[in-house]
Amino acid sequence: MKLGSLKKGRDGRLVVVSRDLAWCADAGHIAPTLQAALDDWANVAPALELLAIDLAHETIPMMRFHERMAAAPLPRAYQWADGSAYVNHVALVRQARGAEMPESFWSDPLMYQGASDEMLGPRDPIPLADEAWGCDLEAEVVVVTGDVPRGASREAALGAVRLIGLVNDVSLRNLIPAELTKGFGFLQSKPASALSPVFVTPDELGDRWKDGKLHGELKVDLNGEPFGRADAGEDMTFDFGTLVAHLAKTRNLGAGTIVGSGTVSNRDADGGPGKPIARGGKGYSCLAEVRTVETILDGKPATPFLKAGDSVRIWMDDESGHPIFGTIEQEVVSA
Amino acid sequence: MKLGSLKKGRDGRLVVVSRDLAWCADAGHIAPTLQAALDDWANVAPALELLAIDLAHETIPMMRFHERMAAAPLPRAYQWADGSAYVNHVALVRQARGAEMPESFWSDPLMYQGASDEMLGPRDPIPLADEAWGCDLEAEVVVVTGDVPRGASREAALGAVRLIGLVNDVSLRNLIPAELTKGFGFLQSKPASALSPVFVTPDELGDRWKDGKLHGELKVDLNGEPFGRADAGEDMTFDFGTLVAHLAKTRNLGAGTIVGSGTVSNRDADGGPGKPIARGGKGYSCLAEVRTVETILDGKPATPFLKAGDSVRIWMDDESGHPIFGTIEQEVVSA
Repeated sequence: MKLGSLKKGRDGRLVVVSRDLAWCADAGHIAPTLQAALDDWANVAPALELLAIDLAHETIPMMRFHERMAAAPLPRAYQWADGSAYVNHVALVRQARGAEMPESFWSDPLMYQGASDEMLGPRDPIPLADEAWGCDLEAEVVVVTGDVPRGASREAALGAVRLIGLVNDVSLRNLIPAELTKGFGFLQSKPASALSPVFVTPDELGDRWKDGKLHGELKVDLNGEPFGRADAGEDMTFDFGTLVAHLAKTRNLGAGTIVGSGTVSNRDADGGPGKPIARGGKGYSCLAEVRTVETILDGKPATPFLKAGDSVRIWMDDESGHPIFGTIEQEVVSA
Repeated sequence: MKLGSLKKGRDGRLVVVSRDLAWCADAGHIAPTLQAALDDWANVAPALELLAIDLAHETIPMMRFHERMAAAPLPRAYQWADGSAYVNHVALVRQARGAEMPESFWSDPLMYQGASDEMLGPRDPIPLADEAWGCDLEAEVVVVTGDVPRGASREAALGAVRLIGLVNDVSLRNLIPAELTKGFGFLQSKPASALSPVFVTPDELGDRWKDGKLHGELKVDLNGEPFGRADAGEDMTFDFGTLVAHLAKTRNLGAGTIVGSGTVSNRDADGGPGKPIARGGKGYSCLAEVRTVETILDGKPATPFLKAGDSVRIWMDDESGHPIFGTIEQEVVSA
């Protein structure tokens, strides 16, 4: 099933959304919010599944589902931790700045604790106070977990995945080097991220969800032009079971924990740095990567970071060309 | 007024607690949880204040307040960000490992994004799976904010402080170096932290709350012996207004954001590293600091990290010797 939250108050109002994303049914009588549903998933999910069946059969009152009316499925969450599972991306970025990547990065996941008190809706603008901060998009896959006990195995962690969705993990690239030098990780360099209009249960994805990975082309358009078409299931060094277990090594994870894949990135077919889509490549899921490739090839980046008026679209189509999770579509605005 | 949460479900049940912490009154008819109160503070706080007055006058039904029945005031929160405002502490730790501290650390706050999906109650044990991880306590002051808009000034940020309390920010010291080397900050090295039995409003503190700092001796006992008696109002390089504004530089903060001071640490009177209480000093608020001082003086640390059976107490007394925030009292257990 597909779940979303219509904009209402701080936590939205839970709706079950039809597979084609055209219709939705209010689920407030089952659980007022998605967080409430996740808090009592074993009892709530079966009732939501029945509602989804009724919605599919059009036997209940239903409303049009407008993505512009959607909040983030979790408009605020108790945890957002983002991995960096496409190690190819990390290796490229390091290569561009002439830094060695430790061999351990291929076996020990990189992950940071992010801010989750405000998750942007799929059509919310990206507020930017200073273009010199180097605003970037990052197209990623996320999962939402139930409760995960401390020390959970990869298999147990994978079994706790309740929902899958997409995120635009906005980054302020030019604030990152100074923050990382301080040693305490990202803070100001990671403003609010935006979530896809709906999150879906693993069974909804069929073969696309296997081995703890989401398979399929993660599409990214920048200012209306194709920018990224990488396959989220390829070159993902750490699957979501491994990422969630990594996070749970020393502590319990609460229901509603959002875990990200990190920027999706595929190796180029010829083994070199990825090519732009216009040149037959799979493109990029963030500006930092194309700037990195430009730096490797030409000595300096050519593609600018985001500025006011720029637009970003992120989505993944199903077999019939309809977005599975809806579309994140954001415009950068001066703020 | 003083607010706490009795253990109940995932978010506890909000109670107003008497100044002497002996009694409490259920506030569920005003707001079911502390988070709900913070979400609508302008409307809810006056009603809670009236309840606190009725409680003080004993004109309403009241219950004994037992700290062992208390959950963390926010058993889960949407944000926990911890500063490192006692730069003296950072300088000492760096000195011990022979690392230079950048001059900017005196003007640009260090802060990390922490995990907030599980905040331990004041009597909850500290579960420890592996003593080789180097388990440490960190006694700190925290504030809880209302909504803080992006780019808020120090003054506006300070005005958004709703509550003040204490935290034991548990750290796994031996996991920290490898995580910080990876560059993405703390993750596994910061398991769940414990909060004081009650959080209090700024007006409750009188002169102890001024200039954005909490003034008074933060008491730490280790296995029943005095370990730390540093004054939280001294040597705090960055006040809470500055810390909250730092966090809000690039994004909004949601109501219920918890911001920590970092480990409280005072300079020694003679300018050298701090002395133990038994030798007339103010002691320490974490084991890392005493180990650092031991390393500076003797070439290696002598005090071990926490092991199963060790106990930690953290509190601050009022003028008449009663804990203002109640007492964090935790035992380390094998887990």
